[in-house]
Amino acid sequence: MPTGHFFNLRMHMSPENSVGVVAEQRVRFNAPMTLKSGAQLPGFELAFETYGTLNAARSNAVLVCHALSGGHHVAGVYADQPQNVGWWDNLIGPGKALDTNKFFVVGVNNLGGCYGSTGPLSINPQTGKRYGADFPMVTVEDWVAAQARLADHLSIDTWAAVIGGSLGGMQALEWSLQFPDRIRHALVIASAPKLSAQNIAFNEVARQAIISDPDFRGGHYAEHGLVPSNGLRLARMIGHITYLSDDQMGEKFGRQLRHGEHRYSYDVDFEVESYLRYQGDKFARFFDANTYLITTKALDYFDPAYDYDDDLAAALARAKANFFVASFTTDWRFAPARSREIVFALLHNRRRVAYAEIDCAAGHDSFLLDDDHYHALLRAYLENISI
Amino acid sequence: MPTGHFFNLRMHMSPENSVGVVAEQRVRFNAPMTLKSGAQLPGFELAFETYGTLNAARSNAVLVCHALSGGHHVAGVYADQPQNVGWWDNLIGPGKALDTNKFFVVGVNNLGGCYGSTGPLSINPQTGKRYGADFPMVTVEDWVAAQARLADHLSIDTWAAVIGGSLGGMQALEWSLQFPDRIRHALVIASAPKLSAQNIAFNEVARQAIISDPDFRGGHYAEHGLVPSNGLRLARMIGHITYLSDDQMGEKFGRQLRHGEHRYSYDVDFEVESYLRYQGDKFARFFDANTYLITTKALDYFDPAYDYDDDLAAALARAKANFFVASFTTDWRFAPARSREIVFALLHNRRRVAYAEIDCAAGHDSFLLDDDHYHALLRAYLENISI
Repeated sequence: MPTGHFFNLRMHMSPENSVGVVAEQRVRFNAPMTLKSGAQLPGFELAFETYGTLNAARSNAVLVCHALSGGHHVAGVYADQPQNVGWWDNLIGPGKALDTNKFFVVGVNNLGGCYGSTGPLSINPQTGKRYGADFPMVTVEDWVAAQARLADHLSIDTWAAVIGGSLGGMQALEWSLQFPDRIRHALVIASAPKLSAQNIAFNEVARQAIISDPDFRGGHYAEHGLVPSNGLRLARMIGHITYLSDDQMGEKFGRQLRHGEHRYSYDVDFEVESYLRYQGDKFARFFDANTYLITTKALDYFDPAYDYDDDLAAALARAKANFFVASFTTDWRFAPARSREIVFALLHNRRRVAYAEIDCAAGHDSFLLDDDHYHALLRAYLENISI
Repeated sequence: MPTGHFFNLRMHMSPENSVGVVAEQRVRFNAPMTLKSGAQLPGFELAFETYGTLNAARSNAVLVCHALSGGHHVAGVYADQPQNVGWWDNLIGPGKALDTNKFFVVGVNNLGGCYGSTGPLSINPQTGKRYGADFPMVTVEDWVAAQARLADHLSIDTWAAVIGGSLGGMQALEWSLQFPDRIRHALVIASAPKLSAQNIAFNEVARQAIISDPDFRGGHYAEHGLVPSNGLRLARMIGHITYLSDDQMGEKFGRQLRHGEHRYSYDVDFEVESYLRYQGDKFARFFDANTYLITTKALDYFDPAYDYDDDLAAALARAKANFFVASFTTDWRFAPARSREIVFALLHNRRRVAYAEIDCAAGHDSFLLDDDHYHALLRAYLENISI
């Protein structure tokens, strides 16, 4: 399974404190689940992984929530795929910031995903065919509800912490709202309390690229043995522009020419073009288009203040967890101001909040990198969590 | 002919000082033209319009250069199309900031365009068929060289001013470099001395959307009676996100729901989705895909410092014009810092430069709006030009 959305920048693997070889697990829930949309799922499976050991008190469990293209393979490697390193391996392991000597860490592929959990590529028991476009929309709230079933399955009554970046941070926040008594610490990183119009606009262009691909076939491409690769590729290219800061892109690529001269053609002239095409092509080979669509809609819809007249403080009043909120100065997808909205709303409710605004050049993707200052702050916060 | 790229925001038409009914003119140049790429064009036509009267000294001519989707219809209306108002009509007319009582104003559709000048939709005399993908790449330098032929045709030895926003500003700058003795004032608005990696990245995704549209047919869609509408639509949607500021998009659309509720479908949920689809669909109906490709490449390639070891000051040393440079605080496509690069390089050469950083919420598209402060500054500068 591929890793997070910018793994080629994460180069500081530390084999000596890796969790080592890990194995995917699956659990099936047979009770139907009513989704926020009103649609019902007739049971589902979740793919997950665990690292470390659950203590006798069952008080040391940490849930790691993934972002748009991540999954349950968060740390370590698979025995038969030594190159396939978990997407947050730089953070998680024995002695690392999220220390598996202390914590029992759980990674899960979200409902509607394409890495093993029930999703659009799964067989619809009612038709015997793949769900495809018939897979219902799932929301951040639904993901958290499904994760709660996993917690039940693992006999974890209360998470010591739920942690995530970007869309993963929204899940950590949602945990504190939907199950205020089942989460002691929420770590919300490079996230936002809701998308802005511009965020939605980028998602919409990505969706339109996929939906208008002739191979999309109304979302039933798999039935026709097709993949809307071109749409997925464009969606990913757009995404990558928003994951990097303008400065980082400038430092990484600048106006560097691929062939040392202007070619006056539509082949690659500039290195940044080559980079985007490569990222787009790679992504289109492994990610499911319907999962991409569902996930971007989940992002668009997430808005805990929606039922509270846009009053985020009122919406967060029911949270009981302690919070660690972090943002990155060069992140223009979810800028620091978006994290501060969360902090202010929590402070208004007299919650305990640690807030870090981290000076890191890598834009939104900073949350995946092992920036020293960032990891030191995470380490300090996590060390203070009693188990 | 459609107007500039955000005309639905330009609502302050003033019929009382409009240039009124205007007519398109065409001129054919039969001498072949060697382009920067080395390719040769066997003569070409330019479509243009003029407003006001050229004075006896031929000293009051102002050239208006267009940006990505603009053209020669800069002011006034056509007799048979009273709704088709020129894209910079709010600026140009009797008594307006660019006063046609004083100046003789010329608008021109660039070489490679799709509004009447020779471009990919024109007939290739060597084949008797439309050029399509065989139309050569043109650069900002080529556009200016072609515009110089138009100046010759109009017996304009020296422009009182050349003015443009965005890509149009690059042409104004290029005039000062390629023909330092034929331009007295260059007005470079919301522009940049070259694109950043992020700018190129957005262009590249737009190009890939067009090129990968199955109806593109290697650029020879017109021969097949096709239009790569879907690719053009996506390209325009991406563009529109970058023309508006995040704040402006937030103020204009926020998270406003089209139907007052989440629909849990891929139809329009949020108003911003509706806006983007509308803009994309409209654009795809009138703009030529090959022109879009050529124009984005012209943007990418423009880099006057390229032959000067990236030393912009050295590159601008040959400019003799006086400059008016303006940027908009919320423009993240060509941020104020990009304009300041031009200003610094000119000051280094002891050129006269007026620089205005204008507080306008509308992002890159601010240059098309009739913001009072912005227009007052332009008026003041233009009033000071002696004719």
